[in-house]
Amino acid sequence: MDEGLKALRARIDSIDDAILQLVSERAGIAQQVGRAKNGEKIYRPEREAQIVRRLREANPGPLSGDTIERLIREIMSACRAVEETPHVAYLGPVGTFSQQAVHKHFGHEVEALAETDIDACFQAVETGRADFALVPVENSTEGAIGRTLDLIVESTLKICGEVMLPIHQTLMRKHGGLGGIQRVYGHAQSLAQCQQWLSRHLPNVERVSVVSNSEGARRAAAEPDAATLGSETAAELYGLTVVEKRVEDEASNTTRFLVLGQTDAAPSGRDKTSLVMGAHNQPGAVVKLLQPLADAGISMSKLESRPARSSNWEYLFFVVCEGHREEAKLAGALAEIKARAAFLKILGSYPAASS
Amino acid sequence: MDEGLKALRARIDSIDDAILQLVSERAGIAQQVGRAKNGEKIYRPEREAQIVRRLREANPGPLSGDTIERLIREIMSACRAVEETPHVAYLGPVGTFSQQAVHKHFGHEVEALAETDIDACFQAVETGRADFALVPVENSTEGAIGRTLDLIVESTLKICGEVMLPIHQTLMRKHGGLGGIQRVYGHAQSLAQCQQWLSRHLPNVERVSVVSNSEGARRAAAEPDAATLGSETAAELYGLTVVEKRVEDEASNTTRFLVLGQTDAAPSGRDKTSLVMGAHNQPGAVVKLLQPLADAGISMSKLESRPARSSNWEYLFFVVCEGHREEAKLAGALAEIKARAAFLKILGSYPAASS
Repeated sequence: MDEGLKALRARIDSIDDAILQLVSERAGIAQQVGRAKNGEKIYRPEREAQIVRRLREANPGPLSGDTIERLIREIMSACRAVEETPHVAYLGPVGTFSQQAVHKHFGHEVEALAETDIDACFQAVETGRADFALVPVENSTEGAIGRTLDLIVESTLKICGEVMLPIHQTLMRKHGGLGGIQRVYGHAQSLAQCQQWLSRHLPNVERVSVVSNSEGARRAAAEPDAATLGSETAAELYGLTVVEKRVEDEASNTTRFLVLGQTDAAPSGRDKTSLVMGAHNQPGAVVKLLQPLADAGISMSKLESRPARSSNWEYLFFVVCEGHREEAKLAGALAEIKARAAFLKILGSYPAASS
Repeated sequence: MDEGLKALRARIDSIDDAILQLVSERAGIAQQVGRAKNGEKIYRPEREAQIVRRLREANPGPLSGDTIERLIREIMSACRAVEETPHVAYLGPVGTFSQQAVHKHFGHEVEALAETDIDACFQAVETGRADFALVPVENSTEGAIGRTLDLIVESTLKICGEVMLPIHQTLMRKHGGLGGIQRVYGHAQSLAQCQQWLSRHLPNVERVSVVSNSEGARRAAAEPDAATLGSETAAELYGLTVVEKRVEDEASNTTRFLVLGQTDAAPSGRDKTSLVMGAHNQPGAVVKLLQPLADAGISMSKLESRPARSSNWEYLFFVVCEGHREEAKLAGALAEIKARAAFLKILGSYPAASS
């Protein structure tokens, strides 16, 4: 082995030794913090968000910011597990984007509980079977996941985090190629995200909406004349051949997930607050409710209306705005909205996702 | 926040900054090594084994040696991926112990290809679709996986690594409790590993052998009067309730996996070598073949005979012995065996697993 290579390897060895000492010290401190906090939860979403942000900003390369985030989240996950391992309910089965989102946010030292539907994710936390639920709430192309919005209005759970996951749809089938495809399976949202591509390349092919992309993959594995949409992971998991990658109509297709727990998060310095308001179908009603936010100079990243399921008002407005509910500016605006609104529920304040 | 907690958090921040700098420098060096090696593979099993061993030995706690190994393998995985991401074929579907073994060995920056059977894992590497295959070869309770041994005799692939995975069998079903279970699904090996427990607690219940524990979990999810054996992960993945953990008859139940590639590994300082010999069914034939190992003082960790599929000799003997084939002592013994054996094939030398 030449001298140059030897020197590089010696430097890697001393780096690894230093990392070992630092990670060990970090885990020891995490234990002390756990004791200092006196029975408080070890998982502090605002604290982890601050750490991730600082390291992403300081990242000198060559590793990507996403890789740095992944490694530090795994280190935090390992240190956390010295004291406790969070149980996280998510929309199963395995191979779904939701499972990827769980590990993106909590690392791998986590008990990930695959639930059969979004309702079961909420129930898992409400009954204490899980510490957190991670549920999809909106897709950048297709909009809101209605069931999550409906459940969150009634639930006692609070939003304590968000996860943004870039979603790339892959078309896959048992054997490759577009020839002979009779039907395309996919979750309704996935089919919707790819409708232009499907109309162009598979114009006369039936589109079958199934309960999840995993179910589509399972069927496509058994039906050579079928294809399915889903994550590339699903192709690996179910032994399918990739026909075409990135068939989504919008390249920046992203799904936003919410982390729900018994409480929301403390301020992290860059937060979002979600709220829902009830309004009657009267001219100017919505403007009146949103005016306090505008007056305070608070920007909204999301506004979504849905028909109310209760009869006391006709519409519900879901708002995501910038800031934490404990910050004076937002607190003032919320107090003003509360005075005007027939119904106001603050769903939680939580750190904005870094990516 | 009290001052003590503040100080601990400040120390964590400076630790994280230091880890960021070290990991980034490490990735930069990995790039230089990649160039220095002039097109050689970035993945060096002997080098990674040495790093893992050194850090496990130096580990001051409180993190376990297994956690330290997991973190450093993730860091190596991330640094490796700056240059290339290995493609690893394994025995699918998802949720199998094989998939856990892939990530235990290669970290998560890997393309894990789920294959339908062990044959397909070999083919994936032989045809260049994958860089490595990871296949089960023996279980501490139940012994050898015959198909892997049969294939490895014919294949041009070499063993370049081993992975030891502790296997805990969990009994699970749709709703909890032992009452009303009519049948228990499981892979044949899993059923065999739990036969005493099953005979004691479910004496009159049918045992149904299925292609994988994942398949058992899939069925148990749909049949409330059935249970299945498998990993706890599978309970999460398929929404089953855990009836009883650790139902395996032997607490130290471990499965050994082999990593197969185009070449074996260079010496790491603590290695194993696998070989297969053909022998005729004559008195003393086996002793004569093994004598050179005994004479050289080389210990064997495994000896397994199988009927030969070719007619040139009656039996094949699979041997795992300590040392690397390039080390003088073992090289001498192997030369002596070669002179005596009707058939000798060295399957590869590779680093012994640390756990």
